[in-house]
Amino acid sequence: MARISPLSGFPEWLPDGRVVEQHVLDVLRRTFELHGFAGIETRAVEPLDQLLRKGETSKEVYVLRRLQDEVATSEGDAASAGSPRSEKQLGLHFDLTVPFARYVLENAGRLAFPFKRYQIQKVWRGERPQDGRFREFCQADIDVVGAGELPYHFEVELPLVMAEALGALREIGVPEVRVLVNNRRVAEGFYRGLGIEDVEGVLRQIDKLDKIGPDRVAELLVAEQGATPQQAGACLDLAAISGADVAVIERVRALADRHGACTELLETGLSELSALIEAASTRAPGVVVADLKIARGLDYYTGSVYETVLVGHEELGSICSGGRYDTLASDGKNTYPGVGLSIGVSRLVSRLLSAGLLTATRGVPTAVLVAVSDEESRAASDAVAAALRARGVPTDVAPSAAKFGKQIKYADRRGIPFVWFPGDEHQVKDIRSGEQVEADPATWHPAAADLWPRVVPAGE
Amino acid sequence: MARISPLSGFPEWLPDGRVVEQHVLDVLRRTFELHGFAGIETRAVEPLDQLLRKGETSKEVYVLRRLQDEVATSEGDAASAGSPRSEKQLGLHFDLTVPFARYVLENAGRLAFPFKRYQIQKVWRGERPQDGRFREFCQADIDVVGAGELPYHFEVELPLVMAEALGALREIGVPEVRVLVNNRRVAEGFYRGLGIEDVEGVLRQIDKLDKIGPDRVAELLVAEQGATPQQAGACLDLAAISGADVAVIERVRALADRHGACTELLETGLSELSALIEAASTRAPGVVVADLKIARGLDYYTGSVYETVLVGHEELGSICSGGRYDTLASDGKNTYPGVGLSIGVSRLVSRLLSAGLLTATRGVPTAVLVAVSDEESRAASDAVAAALRARGVPTDVAPSAAKFGKQIKYADRRGIPFVWFPGDEHQVKDIRSGEQVEADPATWHPAAADLWPRVVPAGE
Repeated sequence: MARISPLSGFPEWLPDGRVVEQHVLDVLRRTFELHGFAGIETRAVEPLDQLLRKGETSKEVYVLRRLQDEVATSEGDAASAGSPRSEKQLGLHFDLTVPFARYVLENAGRLAFPFKRYQIQKVWRGERPQDGRFREFCQADIDVVGAGELPYHFEVELPLVMAEALGALREIGVPEVRVLVNNRRVAEGFYRGLGIEDVEGVLRQIDKLDKIGPDRVAELLVAEQGATPQQAGACLDLAAISGADVAVIERVRALADRHGACTELLETGLSELSALIEAASTRAPGVVVADLKIARGLDYYTGSVYETVLVGHEELGSICSGGRYDTLASDGKNTYPGVGLSIGVSRLVSRLLSAGLLTATRGVPTAVLVAVSDEESRAASDAVAAALRARGVPTDVAPSAAKFGKQIKYADRRGIPFVWFPGDEHQVKDIRSGEQVEADPATWHPAAADLWPRVVPAGE
Repeated sequence: MARISPLSGFPEWLPDGRVVEQHVLDVLRRTFELHGFAGIETRAVEPLDQLLRKGETSKEVYVLRRLQDEVATSEGDAASAGSPRSEKQLGLHFDLTVPFARYVLENAGRLAFPFKRYQIQKVWRGERPQDGRFREFCQADIDVVGAGELPYHFEVELPLVMAEALGALREIGVPEVRVLVNNRRVAEGFYRGLGIEDVEGVLRQIDKLDKIGPDRVAELLVAEQGATPQQAGACLDLAAISGADVAVIERVRALADRHGACTELLETGLSELSALIEAASTRAPGVVVADLKIARGLDYYTGSVYETVLVGHEELGSICSGGRYDTLASDGKNTYPGVGLSIGVSRLVSRLLSAGLLTATRGVPTAVLVAVSDEESRAASDAVAAALRARGVPTDVAPSAAKFGKQIKYADRRGIPFVWFPGDEHQVKDIRSGEQVEADPATWHPAAADLWPRVVPAGE
């Protein structure tokens, strides 16, 4: 076999890392389900033309081809769009939103709207790998999509579901999160009030604030969007406003007043943003912060937008983003507005592991290793294991009838807390304390904390 | 958006189908973990040269390429192996065994052997789609791999774990399974005893028995393996032997005696097979059947081989196959023997759904819909929902303050059993019976059977 080396951008975890990831996924799933989101999965591939619909992402798409097709067409240009093959070109999905929109259209007649779904799957992007950016990564998305209409209150609820889901991870050592929220209508209403036409262009520049700073953004707004220095300054003043309570709304209104930039759209946006901040202050105090610089420049959101940072790890970027689309999907006849957020699970888990913030109590599910005295009595050990498993205790049997010291070492290396010695009188040993007691396979149970591997904050 | 149509070979389920699949996966995972298998995931891609190592599968591999690379090289032959790009060609994995072998080699120094792992992931094959054969499908694998050596008893245990996992699905309506077992050493020992050299070739022909019948296989053995008609007949006689108890061992031995085909290898194989049958008759009575025609012709197994059929759906083919490899992986210095089985989850679930064998009690997790009297009191409904969720009751809130009849219809369409009416005195209605009672959000709990969607045999 050829030399094996990891592929950059394609993260894999050792078993104890996977215990952490699986725990995170289990907690997310449970929270989503408690809120009534139905789990779905979509295929990993979409027709290339669907994936490239928005243009912007074309360079990140992995295109698929069957090896035999390549051989068959290797004479010609295998990359040409007008390929002679009858089958559609397929690519790997780069997010879960495009496939979900397609799933909604494909199954519209069989779904009940508003349709709430969660989706936890891998996605692929051919980007240059770097810290927190992978070529293959796991996303956990929630979205709600309506047929024709979707009430605003969902824009309040969905970020709160995510805040709850991420909050449920605090006890295992995941840092606090801040959900940063904004509303496209506020920005658009304000910009239009200032007399700016190129709203999309301004949002794209504002999106660069964290990377290049306000001075450079101001220059770009003047140079590329044709803003006056006064307009650029006002845009930056708006972007500088943030706060966790509704006072922030008044600050925006005052700024707009000063610039004579009050519009009906701005007022609509502000009343929406205000409702979100107010609900959040009751349901997730301190978690949701209005941050007027949140632009999500490249995405086609039309109302609320969200980003989420891990407190203390802000430089990692957003670990959970999303917003409201007025047209998540449309089939010409019907339009399906939606709102949703997506957690970058791999980015989150990768940081949790590399920063040593938490740890799995063990990398195997096993709570008990049943020792084997000699190969002839393996069936007796198997019977003990079966009795324990029947009562929900994850149990392994020693792979060989080695000396007991070696069997205990087998357990120790894996973090298995108990070794069971079968016999006329069974005994079970807690190998951490060395305590050994008589026990009955039909009734003995480990402490709840030892039953399954747990994920705990580092140092616990 | 362009017209949407399903992609042949890439199955997707509606939410209630996904409830079934998720339940199957949850039961498999729990069984694997109770037996001490650690869960891992590997990346979806492997270097193409690794995927093509065995040659046989080359035509099924999906090759990946980044779109920008294609554009950059579209002048040349994008399919050529000697591509000018610096990056390795990547393909999607077509099973979980090749990636697992690579994972073992890559992490050998950080894993504890024997290493038991389960892995539940999608795999991709560019085959022509047909009933039960997909281009994207989910597999659930268990394997144990040793460093240098791996005791035979694992060849007994692993199919029994799978039998237990599949058996745990009986209560939701999954048909009985038969695990068909054989041992390559029996076949090879017998063939060599007959004087046949081309053991692999004979196994490949025997593998076709179910498809083309014994007469045609006999012809092929003579024509292609150069067997005499007598040798071919003896091979077919061996393949015709099957049975659930150890008497089958005696029948093989008697057949070998008649043909003067007894060899040491045959005896080794028979004693192994016998141990498996014997253990199975205690631990999974009636489930495991020795079937001497099981060849797994194209795979590189060296000991036990396994296939599994759904009773009553034998024509679907095997839903769980595997065997023993003496060299699952090797890095030149160390050899890692392994034994494992793989469940074709998509094939199984697809049949369960299409044959209408079982059904989900609902397609949403939600047990309770909290009604909303008017938008002003939505916060009160949200508070009820929060109280119920805090006690583990999956709860949704009505999307709009429509007439109660419409809100009840919302619940009914989704199979949500309860509608909650908030007020000074809260009431909860079981919309199936119409019964409505006073209830307290802090204490009320639905019947256990109504708490989460369940999967039940059709007709229940």
